[in-house]
Amino acid sequence: MASDKIAVRKILDKVKAEGRTSLTAPEGKLVCDAYGIAVPKEGVATSAAGASKLAAGMGFPVVLKIVSPTILHKTEAGGVLVGIKTKEDVERGFATIMENAKKYDAKADLLGVQVQQMLSSGQEVIIGAVTDPSFGKLVAFGLGGILVEVLKDITFRLAPATREDALSMLDGIAAAEVLKGVRGAAAVDRSALAALIQNVSQLITDFPEISEMDLNPVFATQSGATAADVRIVVDWNPPEPRYRPKHDDIVRDMNRIMKPDAVAVIGASSEMGKIGNSVMKNLINGGYQGKIYPINPSADEIMGKKAYKSVKDVPGAIDVAVFAIPAKFVAQALVEVGEKKIPGAVLIPSGFAETGNVEGQKEIQDIGRKYGVRLMGPNIYGFYYTWKNLCATFCTAYDVKGHAALSSQSGGIGMAIIGFSRSAKMGVSAIVGLGNKSDIDEDDLLTFFEQDDNTTIIAQHCEDLKDGRAFAEVAKRVSKKKPVVMLKAGRTSMGARAASSHTGALAGNDKIYEDVLKQSGVIRARSLRDLLEFARAIPVLPTPKGENVIIITGAGGSGVLLSDACVDNGLSLMAMPPDLDAAFRKFIPPFGAAGNPVDITGGEPPKTYQNTIRLGLEDPRIHSLVLGYWHTIVTPPMVFAKLVAEVVEEMKAKGISKPIVVSLAGDVEVEEAAEYLFDHGVPAYPYSTEMPVAVLGAKYQWARGAGAMPKASPSEAPSR
Amino acid sequence: MASDKIAVRKILDKVKAEGRTSLTAPEGKLVCDAYGIAVPKEGVATSAAGASKLAAGMGFPVVLKIVSPTILHKTEAGGVLVGIKTKEDVERGFATIMENAKKYDAKADLLGVQVQQMLSSGQEVIIGAVTDPSFGKLVAFGLGGILVEVLKDITFRLAPATREDALSMLDGIAAAEVLKGVRGAAAVDRSALAALIQNVSQLITDFPEISEMDLNPVFATQSGATAADVRIVVDWNPPEPRYRPKHDDIVRDMNRIMKPDAVAVIGASSEMGKIGNSVMKNLINGGYQGKIYPINPSADEIMGKKAYKSVKDVPGAIDVAVFAIPAKFVAQALVEVGEKKIPGAVLIPSGFAETGNVEGQKEIQDIGRKYGVRLMGPNIYGFYYTWKNLCATFCTAYDVKGHAALSSQSGGIGMAIIGFSRSAKMGVSAIVGLGNKSDIDEDDLLTFFEQDDNTTIIAQHCEDLKDGRAFAEVAKRVSKKKPVVMLKAGRTSMGARAASSHTGALAGNDKIYEDVLKQSGVIRARSLRDLLEFARAIPVLPTPKGENVIIITGAGGSGVLLSDACVDNGLSLMAMPPDLDAAFRKFIPPFGAAGNPVDITGGEPPKTYQNTIRLGLEDPRIHSLVLGYWHTIVTPPMVFAKLVAEVVEEMKAKGISKPIVVSLAGDVEVEEAAEYLFDHGVPAYPYSTEMPVAVLGAKYQWARGAGAMPKASPSEAPSR
Repeated sequence: MASDKIAVRKILDKVKAEGRTSLTAPEGKLVCDAYGIAVPKEGVATSAAGASKLAAGMGFPVVLKIVSPTILHKTEAGGVLVGIKTKEDVERGFATIMENAKKYDAKADLLGVQVQQMLSSGQEVIIGAVTDPSFGKLVAFGLGGILVEVLKDITFRLAPATREDALSMLDGIAAAEVLKGVRGAAAVDRSALAALIQNVSQLITDFPEISEMDLNPVFATQSGATAADVRIVVDWNPPEPRYRPKHDDIVRDMNRIMKPDAVAVIGASSEMGKIGNSVMKNLINGGYQGKIYPINPSADEIMGKKAYKSVKDVPGAIDVAVFAIPAKFVAQALVEVGEKKIPGAVLIPSGFAETGNVEGQKEIQDIGRKYGVRLMGPNIYGFYYTWKNLCATFCTAYDVKGHAALSSQSGGIGMAIIGFSRSAKMGVSAIVGLGNKSDIDEDDLLTFFEQDDNTTIIAQHCEDLKDGRAFAEVAKRVSKKKPVVMLKAGRTSMGARAASSHTGALAGNDKIYEDVLKQSGVIRARSLRDLLEFARAIPVLPTPKGENVIIITGAGGSGVLLSDACVDNGLSLMAMPPDLDAAFRKFIPPFGAAGNPVDITGGEPPKTYQNTIRLGLEDPRIHSLVLGYWHTIVTPPMVFAKLVAEVVEEMKAKGISKPIVVSLAGDVEVEEAAEYLFDHGVPAYPYSTEMPVAVLGAKYQWARGAGAMPKASPSEAPSR
Repeated sequence: MASDKIAVRKILDKVKAEGRTSLTAPEGKLVCDAYGIAVPKEGVATSAAGASKLAAGMGFPVVLKIVSPTILHKTEAGGVLVGIKTKEDVERGFATIMENAKKYDAKADLLGVQVQQMLSSGQEVIIGAVTDPSFGKLVAFGLGGILVEVLKDITFRLAPATREDALSMLDGIAAAEVLKGVRGAAAVDRSALAALIQNVSQLITDFPEISEMDLNPVFATQSGATAADVRIVVDWNPPEPRYRPKHDDIVRDMNRIMKPDAVAVIGASSEMGKIGNSVMKNLINGGYQGKIYPINPSADEIMGKKAYKSVKDVPGAIDVAVFAIPAKFVAQALVEVGEKKIPGAVLIPSGFAETGNVEGQKEIQDIGRKYGVRLMGPNIYGFYYTWKNLCATFCTAYDVKGHAALSSQSGGIGMAIIGFSRSAKMGVSAIVGLGNKSDIDEDDLLTFFEQDDNTTIIAQHCEDLKDGRAFAEVAKRVSKKKPVVMLKAGRTSMGARAASSHTGALAGNDKIYEDVLKQSGVIRARSLRDLLEFARAIPVLPTPKGENVIIITGAGGSGVLLSDACVDNGLSLMAMPPDLDAAFRKFIPPFGAAGNPVDITGGEPPKTYQNTIRLGLEDPRIHSLVLGYWHTIVTPPMVFAKLVAEVVEEMKAKGISKPIVVSLAGDVEVEEAAEYLFDHGVPAYPYSTEMPVAVLGAKYQWARGAGAMPKASPSEAPSR
């Protein structure tokens, strides 16, 4: 892309010098020219022949306008002609306009006639840009008109956008089909549109002071895309970028904090009911094997451990200090933590920004920055890291080791995570409370979990991202290696925002989250339950090797609901090849239905389930199985669960491993069967046809985004 | 509405006589005229002055067209002029056209010039009609263009549509706002559009042979709505309407079947593992107190009951015969059931239409009709009616009496209903399997449950409705008294349908279900889990008296997610009046947030929950409460559960009863608390912020549709 930064800088300097916050239309056009953004061609002619030549060069139709510093109201002066289609008409038009102008004002200084390309055909679209307080520069795309205004059919990407990002925007709106040509219209030039999006995104990246921008409308045709109108708004005081420690420093400090060899408990107490007592208990009873230093100025020993007046009195190094003292004492203790060179402080106390004490929070942030102490919280329950038997929290202990790392902004949601995990026996590597996020936030955790061998999936609850751009950058990298799931709360509270542009007014906060999370490869959970179930099931499922999903069901009714769920979750029901159809038919009653779902019918013995599931796993054209079990006396729930586990083991021995999920319809015994299956690596759900497919869908979403499986050919691509 | 049926009949007769299946444009216009559907005005003039007079009468602009039986290609002959705006131009145009025509064909027979009103302004919409195999005549409405073609933004109602139905269609599309005027356009004449929809729906109702119809486009303006183009397709062999017994007969027979005093078991057996043995066991062990007659030609006694060779040998009356014999013996036994005048047969056996034995099914249908025996099934698990301790099924017994009546088309889903119900201790009145629905279907059940005092909610799973129209009619009535919830499976398998019209091609099967279920007041469950949870919670919740919902939460994080869920479920978060805000603030810490959600903050004692919940129940401006509990040591889960139950009781004593739902965030003890709360009339869910709000939303949806609560003023109306 040709970009002329010097030209843009010159224009912006002029605008700034004149104290303006927006560019004039001619200035906007010059900026567009400098960044290869096509605008209507134009030129000034001083003769009829010249005008005609100019017009022929830019293509018809054209608009003619008188150029005169003394004529302000061009139309009134008869100085504008639109829709001129031939060279002859341009020549005549030139003469007419000049005559009219002279008639209008005999003394006028007539410099010539402006000839301008007239855009009218093609599909109208909007391309724009906004500055989001969390995500920074974003580029936007939509079809304009009713679609954008009434249906809010618009999509966003972080700027600068790659070519792939830009092309994905053309498919990222509900009415995407329009661009491919409907009702006999030609398809638009996708390449030109993508280039235009990229150029806009580069422009706003290069010039942070450009806060909002509208190209509206852009006319997209078979052979190009031209912005008919340009609006550029500038902000001479853009917000400071948020401070971010360096990647290696984050990794080093977070490793010491999350997997410490020595923990200090500031405010440790022997007194039941005190937070400092609960934390001590959880550390000791949880089985933490590192050093524990109780800090308490008025005790010599707490729970059998020597106590110290200050962290500074502790002889050895300390990796993390857990604070269990009232807010008003935190700052002083934090200075001591800093002087002791402890890399992390877990700030359980509340009483900071969440209660209006913004200054108090600023104070501890400054101390943290000054001494290089990373702060978790304040206003949190603490954190768990199971592989170190570490419960650095005042809540109940949690000890089921596993590979899901969870975090929550809210303490209540943290408690729900603990309760659900315990109830579902979900193995976790860590549970972390982020609270006020004065320092450590979601991307610090991602950075740590990325390189933490005990973690294979990261599931986060958040209400806002303090630095959405930093999160997106880290998530984009991490999600390629490990699935990242997010429950973004506050979806529906799209606060009205002051905006000077059309695009700005359309930038509903949640739509930006939706698009950026997707752009970053993050799986978005729609509910707390989904977040928890995804965290539980995704690490259990092997990565699929392709898009072909087969449903095998004992209950035709479940098959129908499972098919619905597959479509809802963007999964592709494999079109059954005739030979495979015949192979399945060998195992099922003549009135059963092969095809997909494979309906083995209700009264079948274990062997039928066994044979069909084995076939589904063995045939390399099938990539994933969805099983619908129907409780019967012939094949009771636990018999079914065990046979599935057996077939899975048998295939594993042969090197075959595919995702299998199970929906169990039956009496309460199916609950035990579901648990057994989950324990044997097969996510299974009683009384639900949706959840098993939703978790499979989430696994696929990750595998596609991370490039962890071969790309589908266009004919196999899922419908969403 | 003025309708001229004779005129339409005459036209249709002519079309039929000529062996055509569609009407010509002029015929279509005449049909429209007969039903008060506005079409462009037109007339034929034989002089320039006449043309000018006609044009002035209909308003400009107009189109002029030569009228000549010998000129087929009018445009080629120079015989068409469009966009004529003045009387003078009409006169000139008349002359021009006549001259052109003469030049084109000197021998042509020129009858004059047609003057036609030219429509071009206004909002383009589509109004159409289709004939659905299950629902019959439906009227359709959409905005046309991209919205209908690409986004499928179209809505359907059963014909004939009431004025209210028609008006609801204008709000029933995603782009509804367009009709109210956007981008400076005027709002359309809603009354005229509604009348047009009604007239179309009346026309297709009066003439069943009209199978499809398109008015496309219709131009809707500030002062009217005119169909610019009309297309009418006829089907001379419309399908026969499905046989329906009379309402009183259904009620009489269904009462004997569902609440029998005497049951025969055809194929009763003493042999373990046989279906006829399971049915006998379930009847006896379930505690059924009526007479049980085992029918078995080769036994004298089965399980202590005297056995008979045939139902005809039983001395007394029998209300229902449960079939537990192979398919091939069913027909003969059914004849005997008919001869014995038993009103109902429960056909457990499979081996009929579902295995391709369509003839066998037709045979038993014919026998049933001949003898007046209502058939349940075949291919079912049977049914339960708990208040009679009746388990007429081969599945496990179920005995938790309650007020939810459930049914399923599929056996597998039936088993999931039983398992879930048992696990959740859901009280049910009945669980019914409908299987192949050879006779008894969803609307028979609705008709029975409507008058069954033990039932307060009806929840049904179905894959198709054999007679959607009958269902809709019954559901519309029943849903006014008792909530009707439906899980329609096969949502996403919108089979392509052959269609001769544009509207027909757009009639995706699921969109019709969606709209008709809504029109009938049915709550649509989006998942099996929702169906089950709605059935469990809706009867527990009192009917709200208004739209104002308040969230009271101990966890701010839950409050945010609960707010999201309220918006998702169409609930209105009450704008907190200042005095009420002040009243809440009295009970909560100074840094807690009043407003809505009321955030009482995390560390509060039971009293704070108690005081705020009591206030929420006492203040008459608040109509429903959503509670977010956060597990702490200060207020443990069971303490919270008991205090909520106490406050509810206390208020009940004062005559105050409002819906309350609870989301519980905490460790596993919250599961016990949730159960306790549910038992005390408060639907409560652990680890979920969505489900409690979803069930409240479903209750509201019912209350609004059934007119069970005062209508909201426009400012209070929910966003969806």
